[in-house]
Amino acid sequence: MRAIQITEFGGPEVLQVAEVPDPVPTEKELLLTVSRAGVNYADTHQAENSYLAPTKLPVIPGGEVVGTDSTGRRYVALVASGGYAQIATPSRFTSFEVPKGISDVEALAMVVQGATAWLLLRKSTHLAPGETVVVHAAAGGVGSIAVQLAKAFGAGRVIATASTEQKRQLAIDLGADVAIDSRSQDMTAAIREANDGQRVDVILDMTGGRVTDQSLAALAPFGRLGFYGQASREAPKPIAAASLLAHSTTIAGMWLPHAFLLPGNVVGQAMQELFDLILAHKLRVISGGEYPLADARKAHEDLRSRASVGKLVLDPTA
Amino acid sequence: MRAIQITEFGGPEVLQVAEVPDPVPTEKELLLTVSRAGVNYADTHQAENSYLAPTKLPVIPGGEVVGTDSTGRRYVALVASGGYAQIATPSRFTSFEVPKGISDVEALAMVVQGATAWLLLRKSTHLAPGETVVVHAAAGGVGSIAVQLAKAFGAGRVIATASTEQKRQLAIDLGADVAIDSRSQDMTAAIREANDGQRVDVILDMTGGRVTDQSLAALAPFGRLGFYGQASREAPKPIAAASLLAHSTTIAGMWLPHAFLLPGNVVGQAMQELFDLILAHKLRVISGGEYPLADARKAHEDLRSRASVGKLVLDPTA
Repeated sequence: MRAIQITEFGGPEVLQVAEVPDPVPTEKELLLTVSRAGVNYADTHQAENSYLAPTKLPVIPGGEVVGTDSTGRRYVALVASGGYAQIATPSRFTSFEVPKGISDVEALAMVVQGATAWLLLRKSTHLAPGETVVVHAAAGGVGSIAVQLAKAFGAGRVIATASTEQKRQLAIDLGADVAIDSRSQDMTAAIREANDGQRVDVILDMTGGRVTDQSLAALAPFGRLGFYGQASREAPKPIAAASLLAHSTTIAGMWLPHAFLLPGNVVGQAMQELFDLILAHKLRVISGGEYPLADARKAHEDLRSRASVGKLVLDPTA
Repeated sequence: MRAIQITEFGGPEVLQVAEVPDPVPTEKELLLTVSRAGVNYADTHQAENSYLAPTKLPVIPGGEVVGTDSTGRRYVALVASGGYAQIATPSRFTSFEVPKGISDVEALAMVVQGATAWLLLRKSTHLAPGETVVVHAAAGGVGSIAVQLAKAFGAGRVIATASTEQKRQLAIDLGADVAIDSRSQDMTAAIREANDGQRVDVILDMTGGRVTDQSLAALAPFGRLGFYGQASREAPKPIAAASLLAHSTTIAGMWLPHAFLLPGNVVGQAMQELFDLILAHKLRVISGGEYPLADARKAHEDLRSRASVGKLVLDPTA
C-alpha cells in the first residue's frame, strides 16, 4: 500500500511517500480501507519525536482514520501510528462505528478533537451551567468544538482567544460571546477585561508558557484550568501547591489516550453524545481542507504555521 | 466579656485569658452567646501568623462558634476571628441555624471540617461512585468526616492514613477499608500496596512536603488530589504542568473561605446535607475533648502534638 513514512525525525520535510507492505490485523484489530486520515498537532510532535509517547523509526505517522471494513461498515478509529496510509488496522477498542449522516471529516474531527473537548469540559473541569469559560486557540481543532460544546453544556459566557481577526470571527460565529487576541501581552488582564473585570471559572489551554501562567492567574476561586498541550513548545512556570491553595485553584492535565483506561466506556459515551449533537445541528465541524496523501508535508506546514483553521484531513484515495 | 487574646505572635504560650469589651454586631451580624467554640488547626497558624490570611494584633483567635441569639435560636457560625470568647458576632452570611438533634460539638465539627470534607469530595475532586479514595490524616477533624462522607457518596475503596495504631483503628471503625502508616517513607508505594498494586482516583491531602509529592505520583490517570493545607509546614515540590499532562493528573487547591463566594449557597447546601447525614446516623463526629476557655493553650498544644483525635472545643461558660 501507499503511505507516508518517516525514516528520520524532523520537521515537515521528513514526511515522505513510500510503498510499504499492507498491515495484517490481529484478532483484536479491524482491517480498514482508509477513506480519510486526520492530521493532528500531535502528529507534528510525532514527526520530530517531541511527543509524550516516544516514537520508533521507521514509522507511518497519523493517529486517526475513517474507513470501511470488508462488510462495508464504517468506523472512525484512533491508532498509535499508521494513520497516513491506504490501509489501517486499529484496535477494536479504539474504533467507533459512524452513524449515517455523519461525514468522514465530521467523524475524524470527533475522535481526537471532539473527544478531547468533551473530556476537558465533562471530566477535567466539570463545567457547571452558568459558568464562564475561556477557550484558547478557539479556531483550532479542539477549540472550535469546545466553544460549541461549552454553550451546549450551558456555559454562561464563552470567551474565545485566537491570533487573527478571521479566527476570532469564526469563534464568534460558533457561539463565543466575545473573542480576544491570543497574542495579548497580559492575558490575565485581557481575560478579566473580557469578563467585565471578573475572574473566570474554566479555562481550556493547550498553549503552555506565559499563556498558561497568566491564565491560571485569571481563575476565580474554585476555577479550573484544563491543560492539554504545550503548542508553544514552552513550559509554564512550575506551580506552587501553596498558590493553588491560596486561590482555591485547580489545574487538570489531560492526555486523551488515558481516557481509554477509564471504566464505563467513557470515550464511547463521548462519541455518542458528540455524534448526536452533530445530527441535531448543535455542533458543526470546520473543515480545514483536504490534502492528497502525498501532500502530507504541506498539511503539516500549514498546521505549524497556524495559518490553518479547522480540521485537516489527508485523502489516501487521491 | 472573657476571651482569649493574643498580643504577640507565637506558639500556644501566646494564648492568654483577658477581659475585653463585648463586641457590638452590625446589621449584617448576629449577636451570639457562645456555648462552645471550635479549635482548628488553622488557629495555630493564626497564633503564629503563618496562615493564608495575615493577622493583626491584638486578636481574639478562633474561627467557629455555636451559640444562641436573643430569641433562643441556635446557630453555628464561621468568624474571621473572635471565636474564643463568651460573645461572638458572626456575619449572618456565614451563620447556619442548627437543627434539633444536632449537638454543639456536632455542629462545630460541620462548619469547618465537615464543609471542607464535603467541598473536597463534591467540588474539588468530584468523587464518582466506585472510585478509590485516600484520606490522609484520617483520624483528624476533616479526615474522620471525609472517610465517612466518601463511603456515603459511594466510594469503592477508602484508604486511610494515620500516624498511630489507635488512629488507624478509628479510621477503620469509621468505615475505611484499609488504614496505613502516614509516616511511611515511600507513600507512593504504600498507597499502591493498599490498593492491590493499582493507582488511586482521589487523594485528600493537607500534609504538604514529601507526602504531597509522593501522593501525586500515586494517582491513576484522571486522578485528582485535593490539596487543602500544609500541616507539615513544608511545601511540596513545585509542580510541572507537563507532568500533570503526561499523567492526566489534577491538583485542586481548596481553601474554605472561598466557598462562600460560590453562587447558589453551596456551603448552606453542604451544611444541610451534613446535618441530614448525622440525623440519619450515617455520619458521626468524634469528640476530641472539651477544654475550659482558660485552657486554650493546652488545646493548641494537644492539637499540634498530633496527640488529639477528633473535634476539640472550648467551653466559655466553664
